[in-house]
Amino acid sequence: MNTFGKNITLTTFGESHGPAMGGVIDGFPAGFRIDFDRLYEEVAKRRPGSSALVTARKESDRPEFLSGISPDGVTLGSPIGFIVRNSDHHSSDYDEMAKVYRPNHADYTYIRRYGIRDHRGGGRSSARETVNWVVAGALASQWLESKGVKVETVLSQVGPVADENIFAQIMAHPEETPRLEVAPELKNAMEEQVMAAKKAGDSVGGRVSCLITGVPAGIGSPVADKLHASLAAAMMSINAAKGFEYGLGFNAAASFGSRTADTFLPSGSPEAPLRTATNYSGGIQGGISNGMPIFFNVAFKPTPTLMQPLQTVDVNGNGVTLNPAGRHDPCVAVRAVHVVKAMAAFVIMENMTSA
Amino acid sequence: MNTFGKNITLTTFGESHGPAMGGVIDGFPAGFRIDFDRLYEEVAKRRPGSSALVTARKESDRPEFLSGISPDGVTLGSPIGFIVRNSDHHSSDYDEMAKVYRPNHADYTYIRRYGIRDHRGGGRSSARETVNWVVAGALASQWLESKGVKVETVLSQVGPVADENIFAQIMAHPEETPRLEVAPELKNAMEEQVMAAKKAGDSVGGRVSCLITGVPAGIGSPVADKLHASLAAAMMSINAAKGFEYGLGFNAAASFGSRTADTFLPSGSPEAPLRTATNYSGGIQGGISNGMPIFFNVAFKPTPTLMQPLQTVDVNGNGVTLNPAGRHDPCVAVRAVHVVKAMAAFVIMENMTSA
Amino acid sequence: MNTFGKNITLTTFGESHGPAMGGVIDGFPAGFRIDFDRLYEEVAKRRPGSSALVTARKESDRPEFLSGISPDGVTLGSPIGFIVRNSDHHSSDYDEMAKVYRPNHADYTYIRRYGIRDHRGGGRSSARETVNWVVAGALASQWLESKGVKVETVLSQVGPVADENIFAQIMAHPEETPRLEVAPELKNAMEEQVMAAKKAGDSVGGRVSCLITGVPAGIGSPVADKLHASLAAAMMSINAAKGFEYGLGFNAAASFGSRTADTFLPSGSPEAPLRTATNYSGGIQGGISNGMPIFFNVAFKPTPTLMQPLQTVDVNGNGVTLNPAGRHDPCVAVRAVHVVKAMAAFVIMENMTSA
Amino acid sequence: MNTFGKNITLTTFGESHGPAMGGVIDGFPAGFRIDFDRLYEEVAKRRPGSSALVTARKESDRPEFLSGISPDGVTLGSPIGFIVRNSDHHSSDYDEMAKVYRPNHADYTYIRRYGIRDHRGGGRSSARETVNWVVAGALASQWLESKGVKVETVLSQVGPVADENIFAQIMAHPEETPRLEVAPELKNAMEEQVMAAKKAGDSVGGRVSCLITGVPAGIGSPVADKLHASLAAAMMSINAAKGFEYGLGFNAAASFGSRTADTFLPSGSPEAPLRTATNYSGGIQGGISNGMPIFFNVAFKPTPTLMQPLQTVDVNGNGVTLNPAGRHDPCVAVRAVHVVKAMAAFVIMENMTSA
Repeated sequence: MNTFGKNITLTTFGESHGPAMGGVIDGFPAGFRIDFDRLYEEVAKRRPGSSALVTARKESDRPEFLSGISPDGVTLGSPIGFIVRNSDHHSSDYDEMAKVYRPNHADYTYIRRYGIRDHRGGGRSSARETVNWVVAGALASQWLESKGVKVETVLSQVGPVADENIFAQIMAHPEETPRLEVAPELKNAMEEQVMAAKKAGDSVGGRVSCLITGVPAGIGSPVADKLHASLAAAMMSINAAKGFEYGLGFNAAASFGSRTADTFLPSGSPEAPLRTATNYSGGIQGGISNGMPIFFNVAFKPTPTLMQPLQTVDVNGNGVTLNPAGRHDPCVAVRAVHVVKAMAAFVIMENMTSA
Repeated sequence: MNTFGKNITLTTFGESHGPAMGGVIDGFPAGFRIDFDRLYEEVAKRRPGSSALVTARKESDRPEFLSGISPDGVTLGSPIGFIVRNSDHHSSDYDEMAKVYRPNHADYTYIRRYGIRDHRGGGRSSARETVNWVVAGALASQWLESKGVKVETVLSQVGPVADENIFAQIMAHPEETPRLEVAPELKNAMEEQVMAAKKAGDSVGGRVSCLITGVPAGIGSPVADKLHASLAAAMMSINAAKGFEYGLGFNAAASFGSRTADTFLPSGSPEAPLRTATNYSGGIQGGISNGMPIFFNVAFKPTPTLMQPLQTVDVNGNGVTLNPAGRHDPCVAVRAVHVVKAMAAFVIMENMTSA
Repeated sequence: MNTFGKNITLTTFGESHGPAMGGVIDGFPAGFRIDFDRLYEEVAKRRPGSSALVTARKESDRPEFLSGISPDGVTLGSPIGFIVRNSDHHSSDYDEMAKVYRPNHADYTYIRRYGIRDHRGGGRSSARETVNWVVAGALASQWLESKGVKVETVLSQVGPVADENIFAQIMAHPEETPRLEVAPELKNAMEEQVMAAKKAGDSVGGRVSCLITGVPAGIGSPVADKLHASLAAAMMSINAAKGFEYGLGFNAAASFGSRTADTFLPSGSPEAPLRTATNYSGGIQGGISNGMPIFFNVAFKPTPTLMQPLQTVDVNGNGVTLNPAGRHDPCVAVRAVHVVKAMAAFVIMENMTSA
Repeated sequence: MNTFGKNITLTTFGESHGPAMGGVIDGFPAGFRIDFDRLYEEVAKRRPGSSALVTARKESDRPEFLSGISPDGVTLGSPIGFIVRNSDHHSSDYDEMAKVYRPNHADYTYIRRYGIRDHRGGGRSSARETVNWVVAGALASQWLESKGVKVETVLSQVGPVADENIFAQIMAHPEETPRLEVAPELKNAMEEQVMAAKKAGDSVGGRVSCLITGVPAGIGSPVADKLHASLAAAMMSINAAKGFEYGLGFNAAASFGSRTADTFLPSGSPEAPLRTATNYSGGIQGGISNGMPIFFNVAFKPTPTLMQPLQTVDVNGNGVTLNPAGRHDPCVAVRAVHVVKAMAAFVIMENMTSA
């Protein structure tokens, strides 16, 4: 319900307009020293208002760690509890919300699921929840870094502007140091798309690409917890995610086996890690990492909240026009860049510690 | 590791060339009468050799149920244990395999994960494992049918031949009875692609589309076990799956909020289930079903086994040419049509019984 | 690791001398109104210093609820996060502790398990952790009460003073309203034992008895999650617990089947709940409740902290004399009366909601 | 429901009068060579009819392993599926059973739980289920042996005949090699009790004692999965178990801290494992093993099936006299000696592999 992972678990709580968000990370290895400055910095990146491109909700978003870490910053092996206070309660903004079901939100589905909902914001469906994930991901990233694993993410599409070949070079020539880069002109065009949507009171979809390097071969499981299935579940848990693909992805459907075999390069030794000449597999074969870079894309829909009047229904099933409320996120994919990174780090760490 | 689901679990076992495959379904509701004839028929559809399009491995694939069902076919609430014998042992075929790592297979990743592998076929990575899933899915499908839920799947792409608009009508006009149909000429063209790949000793990718109708609103969870995240994890567990998308899917990245809001249709009653004018959400909002049809696509890569000599390495890391073995599946997506259906049924049933 | 339950989960965190204890209750049903005054009162009972019999650590122990409950006190179906601040940090008291392993404490086992320990108090092994359980149990108790279920606990032994027949009447004549009572003179004698131990700087063991009435038949599972096995696991999780028995308990080993059969009383109807003439089974048959009262005993050892010099070793394995620190709990069973009640309520509620 | 363990799981199935019992062991480490002869021998010990003291049901009880083990007997890291056929179907014996609820059996609770039951024997409540556990335990025992861990069990009480001091020496003087021994005269007296009960058509309770040596310090968890709580849950899952105690057990309630502190013996080194002068803790402190012998007792009630007419009710709630059926187990504790050993081995192995 509210727990991610098996070996290391992240159990979260918090309504967007309650007193605090928070979580418990259980199973984090003992004896690891946390760099809190870098952690706070990482968490702050997700914060709305951290960029001109996103909605301006102001939260300090500094997690308070309550357990699991010694006074001098070393993990104890015990559960790491943390909270992030919600400072931005405008309950009055939300009174109107109590009586309507917003389109493409979870208002109606919540009522059908629980019979009750916290109409002040999206309850558990709010993107505010992802602050918990970013805290856990920031811890995981530091641990991964200590093992030589690096997780990078980038915005690779906004509406009609897309970097279609974001992984082309990485798939065809993995032996060169892989880089996750979007051409500057595309980057600018994407930003313009976001600003245009913002100005129009509209919203626009987007896509986040992720590249993970340094994962050793042998991580993951062959049947029920395939590494890419765990990544897919984590990514599809992010608000507004509509699709996940790794390696060749949906292009695999159009491809032929004779042209996409990732031939092993002779290593001349039974112990030496093997490399493949190409990496159409995306670093995972049979659910288990093969030591090559792992990469995937996540598609996000446009946020359903618009700065335009929307037709919808009230809780009695009668038609009603909903006027725009005070905030608006023109492109959720912008913020998702940080959430994808965090969840990817959590999943990879969880799998590396259970191997 | 080898368990799917939480509320209802499917725990499976079996190597493709061991004595049997099998599984345990725990949590299946008591008092449900199984139609065994239809179940055996459903399982047989997955069987290789059931179609001209797939590899000709001969297995009777008739599950033997060992527990959980009364002599007169009614579920007892206790775990349903079953086995499916493997009749097709050609161990000698596989002796050569012991010494090489096949490209794009899990041979190498297995060794890195476990230090040992069953070289007779793919071990747990074999598509043979999916027979267990199809047994569980066939049981789930019967239960779902009794609740008015229907799961349909279809092959909607083979290599370059794709039905690009498989869900277009369903998204834009859901009020008409949704149908999952591929135009006959596309169907023929897809079959030709498969036959051409077979003849060439090559393999071709494909895509399976799934439509689920009759799921009531309120099924799923808002955070860690979103209904679409559970579907994604199940689908990405299927051998050769490279991508999952639901509702607008990857097209969401290119779309605008003002054009994809699923406006609620006034029902005039607080109790009556709501419908939406369009269904770009794909029947799920905030991780919870909204009562509209659920639909998604799964992309599959071409099978890595080809009827052509392949360059690879042996277990000592030396280059070697692997000659084609006796079998070859020119398009794994053909068989995946049944596996996608089975896993979708299992996931939906699991969520409906935990609500 | 730090999660209790499956259907409803309680995940806890907190070191006794860190900033706060806390937990997340996931799966609590939506729509239940909490009586916070009674809840705070219930939690306060566990508090050290709440009785002359226990150690005088002062904590306000008022939980702060952070999520899962609407502003007007109704559960939302979302996870209930809470924290309980630790106000009583005397870190300096504990400096000496960093260098020794106290006998019968978890100091040494922690080091062997995690390689690090928080020497300021017992870390996660501190009885302070049970405040989290009492919060969850108090919520569960209110829910159970709304279903007609009542959980009672009593101290039935302190050292040599024991009520040997605490359940005798309940087993032999369950048709009379069962009461959980210790004779006043035994009660006084027990208190004297505690005071005597306190004065002597010694500690004394004890036993807590629990009676649960109103549980309907059909709660629990027949194999891996037998109702009494879940109770046993929960009870043996309480600090200092050394034994669990239900129904006839250890006396069952000395008894004969012909004298302990719980004969059903004819009800004259297939629907009417059945009662049994006696209740040697303790309300559970085959792991599932039969509708009769459930009762069990839990034995607790004397606390290992004494107000006497103790011989032990330091972290270098050298002998050392440990002088008594500032506090001392002469009989942990006194406080365990509240913890047993809380954990019993949590287990019963969890099973009732999963049936 | 039907799964034991977390890190290594045992998921079982099978009705006592269905075609087969069976299970799946998931998470067993790869690369371990199984001695099948010893395994079959170990499983056979549990078999009814293996001793004059137990009921004479004849089953060959030879497990068939279906997966997870290579042809030459080495574990693959994949799930180990096995079945044990039921050869002893006397369905006609059980026709009468369909209409009555036997006292102290799970007949009535099953109906209340599931609304249906398999009246041919006890369904999942039958002691036949324990054959699955003994298979898993026999595998675990071999693995433990390879790590220097030994699990021993003995019958230490039958009705009024009890070895009251079974652990006294082990607690007071652990430095001497601990032995788990019952005096021959007590052993004989116990056998006489069983035979007398058998002759009288009655049944008698009993107690099984278990000693585990060689477990290193640091195994287990400090809060929710304390090693002794896991042992308690496993033991209380065994049919007819009524109580569990470890270390001082219920005698702890009568004891004083000043007399039961397990003083550490100076080792003179920070690395050398510590020993304690006494072992009243039973080898576990704070839920984690301390390297000393682990020991516990499990109490079993007399089997409810007697060779005497019993008063009970039929499914319509009317009084009825139930005549004795063909079989009778005069003392379930006799067979439980093997089941306790198996479950203890499984729990210890699971904890050792997750540390």
